[in-house]
Amino acid sequence: MATVAIVYHSGYGHTAALADEIAAGVKRAGGIAEIVKLEGAEQDFTAALEAVTKADAVIFGSPTYMGDVSVPMRAFFVASSKIWFTGGWKDKLAAGFTVGATFGGNKDHTLGSMWVLAMQHGMIWAGPGVPNAQINRNTDAGTNLPNRIGSALGVVTQADNAAPDVTPPEGDREFARLLGERIAKLAAKLK
Amino acid sequence: MATVAIVYHSGYGHTAALADEIAAGVKRAGGIAEIVKLEGAEQDFTAALEAVTKADAVIFGSPTYMGDVSVPMRAFFVASSKIWFTGGWKDKLAAGFTVGATFGGNKDHTLGSMWVLAMQHGMIWAGPGVPNAQINRNTDAGTNLPNRIGSALGVVTQADNAAPDVTPPEGDREFARLLGERIAKLAAKLK
Amino acid sequence: MATVAIVYHSGYGHTAALADEIAAGVKRAGGIAEIVKLEGAEQDFTAALEAVTKADAVIFGSPTYMGDVSVPMRAFFVASSKIWFTGGWKDKLAAGFTVGATFGGNKDHTLGSMWVLAMQHGMIWAGPGVPNAQINRNTDAGTNLPNRIGSALGVVTQADNAAPDVTPPEGDREFARLLGERIAKLAAKLK
Amino acid sequence: MATVAIVYHSGYGHTAALADEIAAGVKRAGGIAEIVKLEGAEQDFTAALEAVTKADAVIFGSPTYMGDVSVPMRAFFVASSKIWFTGGWKDKLAAGFTVGATFGGNKDHTLGSMWVLAMQHGMIWAGPGVPNAQINRNTDAGTNLPNRIGSALGVVTQADNAAPDVTPPEGDREFARLLGERIAKLAAKLK
Repeated sequence: MATVAIVYHSGYGHTAALADEIAAGVKRAGGIAEIVKLEGAEQDFTAALEAVTKADAVIFGSPTYMGDVSVPMRAFFVASSKIWFTGGWKDKLAAGFTVGATFGGNKDHTLGSMWVLAMQHGMIWAGPGVPNAQINRNTDAGTNLPNRIGSALGVVTQADNAAPDVTPPEGDREFARLLGERIAKLAAKLK
Repeated sequence: MATVAIVYHSGYGHTAALADEIAAGVKRAGGIAEIVKLEGAEQDFTAALEAVTKADAVIFGSPTYMGDVSVPMRAFFVASSKIWFTGGWKDKLAAGFTVGATFGGNKDHTLGSMWVLAMQHGMIWAGPGVPNAQINRNTDAGTNLPNRIGSALGVVTQADNAAPDVTPPEGDREFARLLGERIAKLAAKLK
Repeated sequence: MATVAIVYHSGYGHTAALADEIAAGVKRAGGIAEIVKLEGAEQDFTAALEAVTKADAVIFGSPTYMGDVSVPMRAFFVASSKIWFTGGWKDKLAAGFTVGATFGGNKDHTLGSMWVLAMQHGMIWAGPGVPNAQINRNTDAGTNLPNRIGSALGVVTQADNAAPDVTPPEGDREFARLLGERIAKLAAKLK
Repeated sequence: MATVAIVYHSGYGHTAALADEIAAGVKRAGGIAEIVKLEGAEQDFTAALEAVTKADAVIFGSPTYMGDVSVPMRAFFVASSKIWFTGGWKDKLAAGFTVGATFGGNKDHTLGSMWVLAMQHGMIWAGPGVPNAQINRNTDAGTNLPNRIGSALGVVTQADNAAPDVTPPEGDREFARLLGERIAKLAAKLK
């Protein structure tokens, strides 16, 4: 049984909602989910760093703001340099998820930033491994299907300008659960 | 008046259709569009390279296959090393467009590959500079609006499994025209 | 005559030293350099944002920490969303520079993050356009030559664990000056 | 005991030499190395694709030409779409290595292209996980040490304009062996 740390920052609650879905996916696969919420760039990151160190895997979650991770997530990444010096996260499994107002918005860059951080630490990166939703995207929004956007690097979701209990839609939430499930299973294997 | 070379490879005709729209945008701005079609990885690229050398700007177009440019486009990029040695494309304006079956599909990586090539040559890169379409993406496909996907690095479009006269939809085509217009105007300024 | 804003954050003074060199390059080309130092993630960015809005071009400078821009730079980028809503930086020229302890360290990702931000704003990106230093890198550190590392996306430099008056070496500093010169010239043309 | 396919294309023999070193590393860890040489963009890739399908892990190797993978490697990636449809490479471990004339040359983009391909297939990516060589890079080329460049996404090496028995230097070769060793060990765990 693997422990998966879900480290996220949320601006308006959508990333938080997705973190909960990912935790549900981890549990669905028999894993233990440890949710860690980042509050701000100037906070003390000691507990958050430790949670990752203790876990078998980590899933980073951040909204995409101006094409990249939020400031608290970047601050957390920079703070992880003290772990980097010791190699404390080496060989740990890592993955990521993000959300934004559009389908694009350079969300792949956000996931790329998480990947780079993971590689700096000598971690191992896994994407969702979920096939693209089979829909005609000119006519069907596909909101009930996982991976309607066509995302391979991590879980990319989209939220309209509405509350987190309404959006992102169910398909995006199941996509998040599938990532949690996958990472829990792979982490158990790598343990 | 600026000359804009539109160098593209098309697998099923959708990239070719977009190349025509970009040419229409170039003309709309009073520029001259020089369309250059790549045929395959083993072709003679001399004429295609020369067309770029003579133009004031270049717009690269490729479908996104397995998350990156097509093989003929990559072959063209490698063939451009003979220009690279002479600095022949330095200070020229460059941009890019792509199309794929999904909204994502790592199309930003395709545009990133074009950007890297442009930077290798000391060229200058411009994206479309078109605001994201203002739609609720959970409920509205926004196919009549430019930039429905939310793309900043270049023109990202999406085509369903149908003929190029049907898809990509009108909004994506206007998005392509707007890129052509912008590059023609900027190239005239830089001349 | 173009005005170039040089917006940087510096951890140990090396990025600050490079910002000065870039300013020298801007002046060498007859431009006006406006140096803007970022202090921290929680600062008021109003004046820094305004300096970019007023300038014809901007050059972003950040150390590479854990493979990406520093926290104050990321915070500045996120703060620029208020400009993004108005399109206030559209068509402005942008470029970037970075420094780190190694040749690699994912410094291209740092520059990629700056590029993505520039594209979000509809800005135009230029790299240094400086040929790679012609040295045998197995035997020669090439520290007196510009572009010893082989960088095309922006100015990549390397500093040893020593004071900023000693490192980065002269070649890296001239590389920075050459970027300043180029951006000043291109910005004058685009004006 | 894990089987690791090493799929590479080599222009002048340096990538081939590194493929041999990686194979030596795989063996050092008790794994079986299956070297697969790509010949050109128009070749039949059936055997190469099958070798990856049969292996527990794959390490991609390509020179960096104009900032990205070589044409045969890109052609191999596109040809892998027939495997992509079946999910045949899902959950397989993947890694990459590259070589170029400079320290930079956008070699991280080459590795990024390999990562994107791996993610498209639902594979799992591991970097070398080798700490940066501890040298003063202004004064010491560090050619006897692994990871003199400071590379985290994969193995980045540098070759001077000389024969593959002379360059890349020993440190780069050991870096390649360490990647082979790591991938063999991780693949055995994931099996």
